[in-house]
Amino acid sequence: MSQNDSAFDAAAFSKQALSGAKSLAAVLDHTLLKPEATREQVEAVCKEAAEFGFACAMVNPYWVPVAASALKGTDVPVGVVIGFPLGASLVESKLDEAERVMKLGAHDVDMVLNVGALKSGEFETVRNDVHGVVERVHGMGGIVKVILETCLLSFEEKLRASEICVGAGADFIKTSTGFSTGGATVDDIALMRGVAGTRAGVKASGGIRTLEDARKMLEAGATRIGASASVRIVHELTGNTESVAQVAAGY
Amino acid sequence: MSQNDSAFDAAAFSKQALSGAKSLAAVLDHTLLKPEATREQVEAVCKEAAEFGFACAMVNPYWVPVAASALKGTDVPVGVVIGFPLGASLVESKLDEAERVMKLGAHDVDMVLNVGALKSGEFETVRNDVHGVVERVHGMGGIVKVILETCLLSFEEKLRASEICVGAGADFIKTSTGFSTGGATVDDIALMRGVAGTRAGVKASGGIRTLEDARKMLEAGATRIGASASVRIVHELTGNTESVAQVAAGY
Repeated sequence: MSQNDSAFDAAAFSKQALSGAKSLAAVLDHTLLKPEATREQVEAVCKEAAEFGFACAMVNPYWVPVAASALKGTDVPVGVVIGFPLGASLVESKLDEAERVMKLGAHDVDMVLNVGALKSGEFETVRNDVHGVVERVHGMGGIVKVILETCLLSFEEKLRASEICVGAGADFIKTSTGFSTGGATVDDIALMRGVAGTRAGVKASGGIRTLEDARKMLEAGATRIGASASVRIVHELTGNTESVAQVAAGY
Repeated sequence: MSQNDSAFDAAAFSKQALSGAKSLAAVLDHTLLKPEATREQVEAVCKEAAEFGFACAMVNPYWVPVAASALKGTDVPVGVVIGFPLGASLVESKLDEAERVMKLGAHDVDMVLNVGALKSGEFETVRNDVHGVVERVHGMGGIVKVILETCLLSFEEKLRASEICVGAGADFIKTSTGFSTGGATVDDIALMRGVAGTRAGVKASGGIRTLEDARKMLEAGATRIGASASVRIVHELTGNTESVAQVAAGY
């Protein structure tokens, strides 16, 4: 591989992604994961995902059938989280869950790394956990993003986790669940992109609420953004003032 | 049933529980659920559980085999959380997970209510979710506590959730995961005890760090306390000054 092939061009990618509403929407996972979300709210998120052309609508497992039904006939896939948000499930339970959600119509499967096993030095378990889900989901036509929960990891753990996940076949490595002590940072995205090179995507998630947040992440090397504020982020780019005012007011 | 039989005597229960280290330990679920917990920390928690005679050692599913091994030959059962902490898993995934952890040696299974289904008015789903796990776990010799995540519920939802869970055969109804916006309150314990009467236990969890916290919950009608600070709480009762100083310092 020449140097050119192995270097990811974040400047070109971010410029393209930020060039218009459609290209920006195409890198945004429109996300609704709060446990109190209702059927009506899940359906509304799916409707927005179809309208804007988001990368996917990301929901909890219980809502996959609802999302699959709402997105039927659109180009927008159903995204779902598994072993979420602690990642401390049994390896077998993550496999079960992955298979069930795929059968129910999911395409993007965002799983959480077994952080405790990583911190215990049980790297083979961490790898098998990811690799098992990757094999199962790929075999059923989907993709896997692995959440590292970077806020809980040391610098060395972030490097190691990134390498394990990419080596295990993850389609994306992803920063955060949004349910822990911190979200995506520019430094973490740069680090993860550094490890991934062109071998995997990098998804920034957790605390991304504005176009400026999204821009920073893309420029640092992210190729996917997870956000619940995705509609407002796109509106910021296109100048929808009402929505931007909401962002400014902290909604 | 006479009136006497149906009224739970919180004053008598709390007086007995607070009468000494052993009886207090016997109502405390010694809990370690942070995702970054290591094997060493899980083993240490189990060792403390055996030493103090806590009601159980409560861990994440991945650590059940470790806890079962560490607690072998003691009277202390392994506790585990499932569908945790969002409760938005598929009904079938909760069943799978319950069966797997029971086979691996768990006894106390703390599951999270499907809060989103409850808020969507899908009460039959909420009931089936609980009832399925209760049947499976009871059939394998264990008990089930159902976490309502009270901080996310309205007054009416708390009442309805409590009634659904008790009706579905839950051994305990429990306030909180400790991973949401709030923990146990005296008012919620009193409400839940009011619905449960003598039909089920009530477990207070989330934010219980001192003997005073535990005392308030027991006096309001709790019969079980979930805490990571369980050792310090018992030491407060027995006057272990070093441990009490740690509590006072906010550790």
